[in-house]
Amino acid sequence: MTDPAADPADNHPPGYVPPRIWTFDKPSGGAFANINRPISGPTHEAELPVGRHPLQLYSMGTPNGQKVTIMLEELLAAGHAGAEYDAWLIEIGKGEQFGSGFVAVNPNSKIPALVDRSLDPPLHIFESGSILVYLAEKFAAFLPGETRARTATLNWLMWQMGAAPLLGGGFGHFYSYAPIKIQYAIDRYAMEVKRQLHVLDTHLAASEFMAGNDYTIADMAIWPWYGGLMKDAYGAQDFLSVQEYTNVARWAQTIADRPAVRRGRMVNRIMGRPETQLRERHDARDFEVNTQDRIEARGGARA
Amino acid sequence: MTDPAADPADNHPPGYVPPRIWTFDKPSGGAFANINRPISGPTHEAELPVGRHPLQLYSMGTPNGQKVTIMLEELLAAGHAGAEYDAWLIEIGKGEQFGSGFVAVNPNSKIPALVDRSLDPPLHIFESGSILVYLAEKFAAFLPGETRARTATLNWLMWQMGAAPLLGGGFGHFYSYAPIKIQYAIDRYAMEVKRQLHVLDTHLAASEFMAGNDYTIADMAIWPWYGGLMKDAYGAQDFLSVQEYTNVARWAQTIADRPAVRRGRMVNRIMGRPETQLRERHDARDFEVNTQDRIEARGGARA
Repeated sequence: MTDPAADPADNHPPGYVPPRIWTFDKPSGGAFANINRPISGPTHEAELPVGRHPLQLYSMGTPNGQKVTIMLEELLAAGHAGAEYDAWLIEIGKGEQFGSGFVAVNPNSKIPALVDRSLDPPLHIFESGSILVYLAEKFAAFLPGETRARTATLNWLMWQMGAAPLLGGGFGHFYSYAPIKIQYAIDRYAMEVKRQLHVLDTHLAASEFMAGNDYTIADMAIWPWYGGLMKDAYGAQDFLSVQEYTNVARWAQTIADRPAVRRGRMVNRIMGRPETQLRERHDARDFEVNTQDRIEARGGARA
Repeated sequence: MTDPAADPADNHPPGYVPPRIWTFDKPSGGAFANINRPISGPTHEAELPVGRHPLQLYSMGTPNGQKVTIMLEELLAAGHAGAEYDAWLIEIGKGEQFGSGFVAVNPNSKIPALVDRSLDPPLHIFESGSILVYLAEKFAAFLPGETRARTATLNWLMWQMGAAPLLGGGFGHFYSYAPIKIQYAIDRYAMEVKRQLHVLDTHLAASEFMAGNDYTIADMAIWPWYGGLMKDAYGAQDFLSVQEYTNVARWAQTIADRPAVRRGRMVNRIMGRPETQLRERHDARDFEVNTQDRIEARGGARA
């Protein structure tokens, strides 16, 4: 499909021609260069810690991580006591997702990963979308059983799974993280992300939540990415003119105001203001611990 | 996260600095420039055709399209007569996904989209992953009910939904379709795609199919993308040294040999050798029609 008239002089760097066989010279990836590799598997031995609840979450407070902690806090708020969980921090910037214990749970080395120890042997669930479906089915909550509403929920959940890699791995990378600014790539992904926001905005003009009148796992999947983009993600709010998407803004604020969402987005979070961070979560009372105590407990590293 | 020492002289083009507000000057996207826009919604009025079966598929024989036609042919091969379907071609290169009828089914304007007319009003299912789950649940096939196997299937189905945008929208785009070759982007996505292939290869060293001993919708989702990459996609087999991934090759061949897969990948296909193409599918006998008849029936355009 390559334009035969293309001139290598136009490439970057000028004259660059892809080799016949790609070789791995050095990690690529700007801010996250140290965690990107062309192979999978563990880099070191490391057991995963295990707490007292059946559900053990290994995660970090990224958008994909927030999906699951929001779901767990929503389940608890709705009275599902069986959703009590231990949330352990996996610092991806330190390569903890390449520890042998984590890889045994998720061979793809991405957070979040969940272990349900109420099954014997314990059950491994990975990919945020799979974890959301698993928890929704386990507790019969936030994923309707009725065919029409269930289908709408899964349509939009799957939409998020396919769309966000172009937001995070595409736009966010080239606009914010890459070591050089490449206009072609930034233009490509800015166009796509604005298209995605317009899809959401058009849908939310006629629908309270993504799947209709009920708040579902589709909202929990989409909100951390696109609600974040409306607010502060990548510092790209002016660049993308996010103020155009008024229906997305209304929906995002409705969700942001939910107490379970406020709790869920604190869990395993290691960026932002100290009072928004809860490095590990083992008990509902952990949210009530004085912020300063939490900062001191971890050595004040990010105070 | 941007390196504060970054010099705009290193950017592409040299001196490029992203503007404060992005504006849409011209379509970006190389070979697919004409179908990429920063907004959603219909561009023209166009009703969707409706055939005689309850299931109406609107698609094209891309990897995402193949997932669904393979599933439908597998269901029929397994004796689920209710899976009879009409498959209508949506030529994305001609912008048919922006017709009003298609947008009403899938506001995201991507193939495949399915309408189940056995429900009143007809049910709209979009996103290939959602269509696979819908059909699997409707016919109780290819998605195990038992918790452990079901979870494994959904883990890997969701893995595919999140991984393939970096293969197709990332690697394929920058290696094959983009108007210029950008080494940084090609290196970034080659590394990621090789990592993904290694994840699959490691898993398939110990597992016959993605979710264990049974062939499931996880295989049907992953095969069109990664099986294709092992064979001819993007002309990148040498570049990515795909011969390293022997377990992926074994699994891909096993699936390629299934008669239902051979049929499924013909449907709505408009590229490749004429005998591999079935532009529309309305009946099981359509596969038996003489190839030359099919070519003549459509005016011989691609004979």
